[in-house]
Amino acid sequence: MKALRFENQQLQLSDIATPNRDGEALVRVTTAGVCNTDLEIVRGYANFSGTLGHEFVGIVEVSPEASQIGCRVVGEINAGCGNCALCQAGDPRHCANRTVLGIVGRDGAFADYLSLPAVNLLKVPDEVSDRQAVFTEPLAAACEILDQVTITSQHRVAVIGDGKLGQLIARVLATTKCELVLIGKHAEKLQLAASAGITTTLLNEVDATRPFDFVVEASGAAAGLQLALQLVRPRGTIILKSTFSGAVTLDTSRIVVDEISVIGSRCGRFDKALALLATGQINVEPLIAAEYSLTDGVAAMQHAARAGTLKVLLKNTS
Amino acid sequence: MKALRFENQQLQLSDIATPNRDGEALVRVTTAGVCNTDLEIVRGYANFSGTLGHEFVGIVEVSPEASQIGCRVVGEINAGCGNCALCQAGDPRHCANRTVLGIVGRDGAFADYLSLPAVNLLKVPDEVSDRQAVFTEPLAAACEILDQVTITSQHRVAVIGDGKLGQLIARVLATTKCELVLIGKHAEKLQLAASAGITTTLLNEVDATRPFDFVVEASGAAAGLQLALQLVRPRGTIILKSTFSGAVTLDTSRIVVDEISVIGSRCGRFDKALALLATGQINVEPLIAAEYSLTDGVAAMQHAARAGTLKVLLKNTS
Repeated sequence: MKALRFENQQLQLSDIATPNRDGEALVRVTTAGVCNTDLEIVRGYANFSGTLGHEFVGIVEVSPEASQIGCRVVGEINAGCGNCALCQAGDPRHCANRTVLGIVGRDGAFADYLSLPAVNLLKVPDEVSDRQAVFTEPLAAACEILDQVTITSQHRVAVIGDGKLGQLIARVLATTKCELVLIGKHAEKLQLAASAGITTTLLNEVDATRPFDFVVEASGAAAGLQLALQLVRPRGTIILKSTFSGAVTLDTSRIVVDEISVIGSRCGRFDKALALLATGQINVEPLIAAEYSLTDGVAAMQHAARAGTLKVLLKNTS
Repeated sequence: MKALRFENQQLQLSDIATPNRDGEALVRVTTAGVCNTDLEIVRGYANFSGTLGHEFVGIVEVSPEASQIGCRVVGEINAGCGNCALCQAGDPRHCANRTVLGIVGRDGAFADYLSLPAVNLLKVPDEVSDRQAVFTEPLAAACEILDQVTITSQHRVAVIGDGKLGQLIARVLATTKCELVLIGKHAEKLQLAASAGITTTLLNEVDATRPFDFVVEASGAAAGLQLALQLVRPRGTIILKSTFSGAVTLDTSRIVVDEISVIGSRCGRFDKALALLATGQINVEPLIAAEYSLTDGVAAMQHAARAGTLKVLLKNTS
């Protein structure tokens, strides 16, 4: 089968064997999405080698759960050991021995087929198109914030970053009716959020005189955390969403003196994201910048890496 | 009066006027303590100029609260504007316009006299000696942790730093009956903690295979936070206590991927600390390294700055 792989510091389309992991489901990928993490892996993040991609929708061709076969599914990306206390409690997201689709020790979704444990797969409701369903993973990551902190209509909240993830986070946090502002560098991307009813401001026009209760850092850049520290109120909370290769230089004394909380936030549960898509509360289609065939995957990644690009999709046409 | 001042990048004993701040209390300082923050100010932290010192015990000579006059007191170090919502709620610790004794816009305690609002002063119970009472401020800062997070006997907790603050934090956290270890570089200081019933380990012998639910960073050094990130479990909490001049370089992706919380922690309330001293639950006397006369304040600061030195006290003999 075809697969877009990062190996020996090279990104290329390869012909490899169809995955065959004992006891797992085999999914024929129909659409996949390029995430900033994929771009960061190519820059050295996570030290991953293999097939990229972790955002997908596809059809189950083989599964130990017979009821899944033939179903259209999305899949949670963390595959746990199954034995540790976390896995036994039904949450492999922090299993110390987990693999992660296209990120840690497991080939990903930019391929004709992928393999995941059957328990990771969720059926996609009929009313959610492939182009919407492929956003389930990043939308779930946005929903994770509301599983970690309580945001209400009484809170002032800033989201830093008008890119793919910042756009989704702003739409999820808007469901809380909080006083929300999306901060970005790109007028046209802010306009996209404004069309969804979100208040926006350009980075160089941020009003820092009224500090925020919560600041979500989703810019994908080290400078985002420094801005977050400027914007958050004493005893406020910064939520870190960006993963990237490289270190951040930080004035930790500001965190201490103002007793700020900095909370890392990663993967969320898919059911909430699917519900937001199925009910139409969040419409992700305007966030699609381009569609490529998997066979043009290298060009798709180059497009996705261009500054200001929103979601690039990979369609399997084989 | 005499005062140990940091001015024009110089630390020196000066003769200055007795403080006279409208509506405040005047306290004759009997004993003061040197904190790492004082040492950091001399290295450039907080950009402070004036009389150093914020840990003290003394006698009230003048006060708008007549009942305080003649009493032995300690004093909370943050003096708020009195008008903002935080001050009105009785907690000036994060008032945006606060002054802070010996740290921000207000002369400190390394002097014959200091001035503070009467509301900041707490009477010291008779059973608490001056040598114990002078620890109230840093002990309250240690207690602040338990106002921010819930630590129980079920938790594994590491405190990084066997210095003045780390020693107090370990003693306070030990009251929760948690599984506690104090990590330090100095065998003799670890021995001091062991004498108080605390499990200790040398930095180069830390067992990182069983990660901790909570890690308190009180080493006063950038490397402490990096170690904390190695030791904390996924979804665990790091509590930052060290303030110092300079920036920290950090792999924030670890925070994101493992959904770690990093919580800044500063000043605590004095009543809890005084209660721990009055009941004898915590004995701070073994932490005193040396006593100097205020007139030998420069030498006292030099002593306190030597690696491995615990609490240096300044006694007023005038």
